Amino acid sequence: MNAPVRFAVININHGHIYGQVAHLVNAGAEFVSFYAPEPELAAAFAARFPDVRQASSEAELLEDDSIHLIVTSGIPSTRAALGIKAMLHGKDFMTDKPGFTTLAQLDEVRKIQAQTKRVYSVCYSEHFEVASVIKAGELVAAGAIGRVVQTLGIGPHKTNLPSRKPWFFEKEHYGGILADIGSHQAEQYLFFTGATSAEVVSAQVANYKHPQYPQLEDFGEVSWRGVNQAGDTSHAYVRLDWYTPDGLGVWGDGRLTILGTEGYIELRKYIDPAGREGGEHLILVDQKGMQHISCVGGDLPYGRELVFDIQNRTETHMPQWRCFLAAQISLEAEEAAIRLGHLEKAGRA
Amino acid sequence: MNAPVRFAVININHGHIYGQVAHLVNAGAEFVSFYAPEPELAAAFAARFPDVRQASSEAELLEDDSIHLIVTSGIPSTRAALGIKAMLHGKDFMTDKPGFTTLAQLDEVRKIQAQTKRVYSVCYSEHFEVASVIKAGELVAAGAIGRVVQTLGIGPHKTNLPSRKPWFFEKEHYGGILADIGSHQAEQYLFFTGATSAEVVSAQVANYKHPQYPQLEDFGEVSWRGVNQAGDTSHAYVRLDWYTPDGLGVWGDGRLTILGTEGYIELRKYIDPAGREGGEHLILVDQKGMQHISCVGGDLPYGRELVFDIQNRTETHMPQWRCFLAAQISLEAEEAAIRLGHLEKAGRA
Repeated sequence: MNAPVRFAVININHGHIYGQVAHLVNAGAEFVSFYAPEPELAAAFAARFPDVRQASSEAELLEDDSIHLIVTSGIPSTRAALGIKAMLHGKDFMTDKPGFTTLAQLDEVRKIQAQTKRVYSVCYSEHFEVASVIKAGELVAAGAIGRVVQTLGIGPHKTNLPSRKPWFFEKEHYGGILADIGSHQAEQYLFFTGATSAEVVSAQVANYKHPQYPQLEDFGEVSWRGVNQAGDTSHAYVRLDWYTPDGLGVWGDGRLTILGTEGYIELRKYIDPAGREGGEHLILVDQKGMQHISCVGGDLPYGRELVFDIQNRTETHMPQWRCFLAAQISLEAEEAAIRLGHLEKAGRA
Repeated sequence: MNAPVRFAVININHGHIYGQVAHLVNAGAEFVSFYAPEPELAAAFAARFPDVRQASSEAELLEDDSIHLIVTSGIPSTRAALGIKAMLHGKDFMTDKPGFTTLAQLDEVRKIQAQTKRVYSVCYSEHFEVASVIKAGELVAAGAIGRVVQTLGIGPHKTNLPSRKPWFFEKEHYGGILADIGSHQAEQYLFFTGATSAEVVSAQVANYKHPQYPQLEDFGEVSWRGVNQAGDTSHAYVRLDWYTPDGLGVWGDGRLTILGTEGYIELRKYIDPAGREGGEHLILVDQKGMQHISCVGGDLPYGRELVFDIQNRTETHMPQWRCFLAAQISLEAEEAAIRLGHLEKAGRA
């Protein structure tokens, strides 16, 4: 038996932190302490985790040799720097997505990760917290739809404007729509197609609805093309937006269609609007017929596999290269994107 | 009361001709005669329409002054030339899609149409024969989802290989996947966004599954961007393929998602796989809630409006410019497309 993984949280600017912690705690890891510089965020977090010690500084946690893993949902632009510090202190690191807001951050993290051999894991929650994605991965790996030609992801999101802090609207801090919520999609593209290299075919970002926030990209699309180790070409198309209307029962009608040469899978991840109850709907159409598979309650191995990897220095939860390549092609898309609508001309960080 | 529109059919190489005829007959037009050079096709067609006179040549019909309208589903590459002849003989013209297989054909047709003021109508059946598209048009025009930012169309098709004639696999004759089945999508993009000009952002075509048919493009995608008369930018993304597995109950799981700033509409046109019975499903999500609207049996005004236009020299069924612009941006996408997979290098017509 391995010793339990002990982890600490530093910076909690996005509510995703609760999901990140849950992955680890459910996998038997020990949540020992946290630090957040904002008193109001820290108070709410402390109330949720009364047995977890609140540290007085980031350094106190980084220098604690009993801690194996640092976890963060800090402001996106700060995550890479924290991850570098964690790795240089001999710790593994798990961050909310996006893991990076610039290609320069990614380059530096890749360099330090290669030197230190630490884990730098981005918690791509639209994959790792969605049982239908896990199930689709099993079906695709088993050959259920032949060779995967394309993933087509739609990632609409609700803005919930009153709840958002200023950084949400500042390109320098959130990174842009393709870098941010696009990184989920990039990771799923690489996961389902096995592409080990990929490039941007085209990308566009726009602000059509929020002139009062001229750095908010409320629409984005990107097309990627990649190649797997067998030399097969594959495609991804992704559309993202911040237009989700109030009438939708959830935060976003996320869909993923995985097109194979012998069939396809559609995921209605969070809702089937005006249709079946709940989320986690997988629809498989193959040469034999059509099936609806409910994936509610399905296995979510991310936390368990990450803990295993920390203990065994393996890469079962996600190969490190895929974590980085997903970020790379998202950031490259953001860099390459044609900018339209009300976007501030000098908005690029 | 106007005199009834009398029409004749010339060339029937695609089964779409039955739908084209039905539009007109249901609208009170008189189907008077037809010509098809292939005896086996002519025999089957004559059996279906025993009261319709079979002519012995194309010229016989073109020169018959009692005929107002020529209708065709000939091999795609022949349609423009037939339309030009029809217009030069003072007749209106309705063709199966694609209406053109090259930009040169389109240029010539535009010139002759402007001279003769005849109708050159392409029967974009994925719009005109789908009641949920008609209903969505009404909802969008009424402002149900705010301003339309994007249409996202998925047009998978079943190959039914044994039923296909050689021209189906010859780029010179079918025009390419974006020019052919992509033209449906282009027309719907222009229809829903009101874009009056548009350009190709990116396009790709491939053959991944059918190396035995090296001119068949079995995968295609295109992104268009356009502007309407109010100056609003809009987007279209389209994915097309010939991979539909046998297990799907219909020829293709055609979808269209219309994204507005205040809501969205999803159409499951022909099937809701493993879901509700039948086709013609419209799902509306707006600021107030989510609705499923069945459009089965809904109005299909194409034939009625085309007949009206022929009688009154109006453009109610589809503005002539939109018919041509849809073809133009489809053909431009085909021209611009990156070519991948097993496609014959010299396959471009």
